[in-house]
Amino acid sequence: MSTPNIAAAKAALSHIEQDENPATIRSKSRDFFWYSPVLKEKMDHLEADFVVNPKSEEEVIEILRVCYAHDVPVTTRGAGTGNYGQAMPMRGGCVMHMKNMASVKEIAPGRVVTEPGIVVKELDAQTRAHSGQELRMMPSTFATATIGGFVAGGSGGIGSCTWGALRDFGNIIRLRVVTMEEEPRVVELTGDELPRVSHAFGTNGIITEIEMPLAPAYDWTELLVAFDDFPDAAKFAEGVANQDGILIKLATVIEAPIGKSYFQRIAPHVEEGTNLVILLVAPHSVEGLKTFMEAEEVPGAIIYDSTDNDWPRTPGALAEYTWNHTTLRALKVDPSITYLQVRYRYPDHMELVEKVRAEFGAEVLQHLEVMRENGKVMFAGLPIVAFSTPERLEEIIRIHEEMGCMIFNPHRYTLEEGGRQSTDARQLNFKREADPKGLLNPGKMIAWDDPDFDYATMYDYPAMTPKPEAAE
Amino acid sequence: MSTPNIAAAKAALSHIEQDENPATIRSKSRDFFWYSPVLKEKMDHLEADFVVNPKSEEEVIEILRVCYAHDVPVTTRGAGTGNYGQAMPMRGGCVMHMKNMASVKEIAPGRVVTEPGIVVKELDAQTRAHSGQELRMMPSTFATATIGGFVAGGSGGIGSCTWGALRDFGNIIRLRVVTMEEEPRVVELTGDELPRVSHAFGTNGIITEIEMPLAPAYDWTELLVAFDDFPDAAKFAEGVANQDGILIKLATVIEAPIGKSYFQRIAPHVEEGTNLVILLVAPHSVEGLKTFMEAEEVPGAIIYDSTDNDWPRTPGALAEYTWNHTTLRALKVDPSITYLQVRYRYPDHMELVEKVRAEFGAEVLQHLEVMRENGKVMFAGLPIVAFSTPERLEEIIRIHEEMGCMIFNPHRYTLEEGGRQSTDARQLNFKREADPKGLLNPGKMIAWDDPDFDYATMYDYPAMTPKPEAAE
Ligand SMILES: Cc1cc2nc3c(=O)[nH]c(=O)nc-3n(C[C@H](O)[C@H](O)[C@H](O)COP(=O)(O)OP(=O)(O)OC[C@H]3O[C@@H](n4cnc5c(N)ncnc54)[C@H](O)[C@@H]3O)c2cc1C
Ligand SMILES: Cc1cc2nc3c(=O)[nH]c(=O)nc-3n(C[C@H](O)[C@H](O)[C@H](O)COP(=O)(O)OP(=O)(O)OC[C@H]3O[C@@H](n4cnc5c(N)ncnc54)[C@H](O)[C@@H]3O)c2cc1C
Repeated sequence: MSTPNIAAAKAALSHIEQDENPATIRSKSRDFFWYSPVLKEKMDHLEADFVVNPKSEEEVIEILRVCYAHDVPVTTRGAGTGNYGQAMPMRGGCVMHMKNMASVKEIAPGRVVTEPGIVVKELDAQTRAHSGQELRMMPSTFATATIGGFVAGGSGGIGSCTWGALRDFGNIIRLRVVTMEEEPRVVELTGDELPRVSHAFGTNGIITEIEMPLAPAYDWTELLVAFDDFPDAAKFAEGVANQDGILIKLATVIEAPIGKSYFQRIAPHVEEGTNLVILLVAPHSVEGLKTFMEAEEVPGAIIYDSTDNDWPRTPGALAEYTWNHTTLRALKVDPSITYLQVRYRYPDHMELVEKVRAEFGAEVLQHLEVMRENGKVMFAGLPIVAFSTPERLEEIIRIHEEMGCMIFNPHRYTLEEGGRQSTDARQLNFKREADPKGLLNPGKMIAWDDPDFDYATMYDYPAMTPKPEAAE
Repeated sequence: MSTPNIAAAKAALSHIEQDENPATIRSKSRDFFWYSPVLKEKMDHLEADFVVNPKSEEEVIEILRVCYAHDVPVTTRGAGTGNYGQAMPMRGGCVMHMKNMASVKEIAPGRVVTEPGIVVKELDAQTRAHSGQELRMMPSTFATATIGGFVAGGSGGIGSCTWGALRDFGNIIRLRVVTMEEEPRVVELTGDELPRVSHAFGTNGIITEIEMPLAPAYDWTELLVAFDDFPDAAKFAEGVANQDGILIKLATVIEAPIGKSYFQRIAPHVEEGTNLVILLVAPHSVEGLKTFMEAEEVPGAIIYDSTDNDWPRTPGALAEYTWNHTTLRALKVDPSITYLQVRYRYPDHMELVEKVRAEFGAEVLQHLEVMRENGKVMFAGLPIVAFSTPERLEEIIRIHEEMGCMIFNPHRYTLEEGGRQSTDARQLNFKREADPKGLLNPGKMIAWDDPDFDYATMYDYPAMTPKPEAAE
């Protein structure tokens, strides 16, 4: 690893927009890593040496060419809403912020072609205005996150109850990518090439153009359904998602007392013991939903309907109580809590959830997101965990795994540890070709740095900028 | 049952359009009943006394009022493409043809309000032109059948691989219905009232307005995929339907040698032993589909792509080789064959199909339609059966049922026998209220005529117009 020549690179890029304010540089070096007490402890000190804001693919190419020549690491930033420190510069260097590359290039039936730096909500507004279309799925950070950050750092979200995960065949159509070489190349990836860079945290190429499938945009009706018993709530959410004629965009199950304790605008309308199901339903499916509820004698009541309610103060977009926003709301009220990411797989999903509840009780409060996986309805769990020690957190994870749950550990900054704890050869091989010096978002791909790593303990990137204390 | 006064009713309706040509009256008294050798034998002689073509709800009300007063049975006709004799006047009387009530009243995001007599293809053309929308599902007779006939006499079709059956919650929004009373009433049915008249063959009310949900209309790519082995073909069709990110409208599995023997324009391109999968795929999902095929090493080859092929003569719309059109094409080549309607339920669908194939071999050639039921992908079977005797047909049905398949017998003209062989109390109760004299499409609801019927043998409507031979 050669020593970066920061000053030379920064100077050579002086004609491209840069942020000079130290506070801005610091804030643009951070994301939602602090969500995890483990990552907060490890990454809080990280900071870029400079921040550059390209406004075109040509400028991206130039930045990569210059940084390659001067051995400067480049960590790409969408909006910095990632919650694993994905966008944090482990060795300092350059943070490349994509916010100025936000043009939508083409909208057609079922597809959109866009630059990566556009905020998801703005992209949806444009496709909706153009032809009543929207992205199939979006993260709950849709109001601030970029589409590029979602593709490079996300995995699914609102819409996944219908369309599955971002990585599923058909959920990304095409990515245009710039490589980090002496002379950067522009490559177009489709089909089986897409997994090389999707959810690769920008470790092996910079996405400059994205083609995504679109679904019809409706004025989704937002509903809150209250249940006394948690299993009834979970069964209802699953049941709605299995109704082929009822079109939904979201079905979230929230165990009591999360609603009362953490959802401040909802709290006045629920009890300690209220379990909630949050639904986004196509307006033309609302009556079908209500008929289903009557026919099945669902033991829950609709307590809020965005199209018809007498709440003096509405809760705002219900989608912003789901996916990782549930955790965010809990953290705002009680900064001591933390969370996990669990997969409860079909057909054991319901049984596994009950096992976990029986084991942990209030230490692990359930928050389930209905998802489709291989055509079956199942649950992604983002439980709220009472944090005591990192050791207990490890133990909780282990017990989940022993029960048969799959854990995507959100307390890790590497691709492998947040995923399936194994090398993705497609991503590794593409990095060999597209980032031979290993300068793109360093420290995030274990397979690149330490192929023999055994996952016995948390990976510690040896070249990470040391903490100031340690340096003293 | 009072004797109808045909002449008086016809005269009282002389200001409403009527068909006077005897050949027209005969043809408008018939549907696709002849599909079944059993029904052909029983119903071939049936004929209306007169045919009237209302052009408004007011005229429908007048027809029903007059026929009620004169005890004249009224059998409603959409386009007469039903294949169980649904639209055939069992006791003669009036056939009311809805073709003049074909206006689309409103199109909005996710919904359409229409009169019942419009042909499905024309309705789709209007919703597509208006806002890129189309019906969620349609029968393979879409080019000739009416939406009213589909709702009153159909069950699902092209689109059911995604949206389930017509009867599923949310797949019909609202029906406006005229009753057959001294003073006919107009009632609006929604929610749990819909099953009273949907798929009730017009036995308890005449539908004058329909509100249906819409889905986005795409220029669906039509594909033919060829397989040497039937189970590979079935597994592929199921697998595609279980890919959450790949949007399809149709997945049909056709056992060899149906393609070679009966699909005349496809035959030159396939072998005797070629099993076929017919797919309609959203254009923005085609690449995802191909990636899936490679990733799964699917042992099939795309032999026809509607957007890119060198066939000197294209097969036309592939949808018209599916659902009951498969049978139609076989019948045209070999009038001696017949068919069944089977449900192979999840999770045993694949295994059941193989059991049936092992039992019957070429006597029952498989034709599977991928459907969703309760959120799971399964198969509706419309096998092509080598007809020998009605007794053997009964035996084949019995063996299917013993294996655990569900049969919807297409060789019966009653609602109950073509369905679950049990009374639908919702339909019966509504008939009591809406058709007290039992004049609407008589002979089609056993529960009305003979509540104690035991289903030991085929129901024979006692009041059916006797055959001319029998009358001699
Ligand atoms: C409250 C909260 C809720 C969340 N909910 C969800 C959710 O529902 N679903 C979900 O999937 N995620 C969720 N996340 C994670 C994150 O918000 C999303 O994945 C989001 O889409 C990231 O977008 P961003 O623009 O903020 O990306 P960033 O955080 O800036 O970047 C994410 C990763 O992508 C890389 N990157 C960004 N742009 C590019 C580019 N053009 N080329 C190459 N690499 C690039 C970055 O280097 C980084 O590794 C949530 C996070 C929080 C804090
Ligand atoms: C080759 C072939 C393929 C087919 N494929 C399918 C398929 O894929 N899926 C499927 O579901 N069906 C299928 N069918 C059956 C039939 O074509 C469809 O159900 C079609 O939608 C019926 O429409 P129609 O206008 O022809 O109705 P008709 O046959 O005229 O009528 C059907 C029934 O509805 C009643 N009816 C019609 N209009 C009204 C009204 N306004 N109010 C009250 N009652 C009314 C009639 O009395 C009759 O009982 C197929 C039939 C054939 C021959």
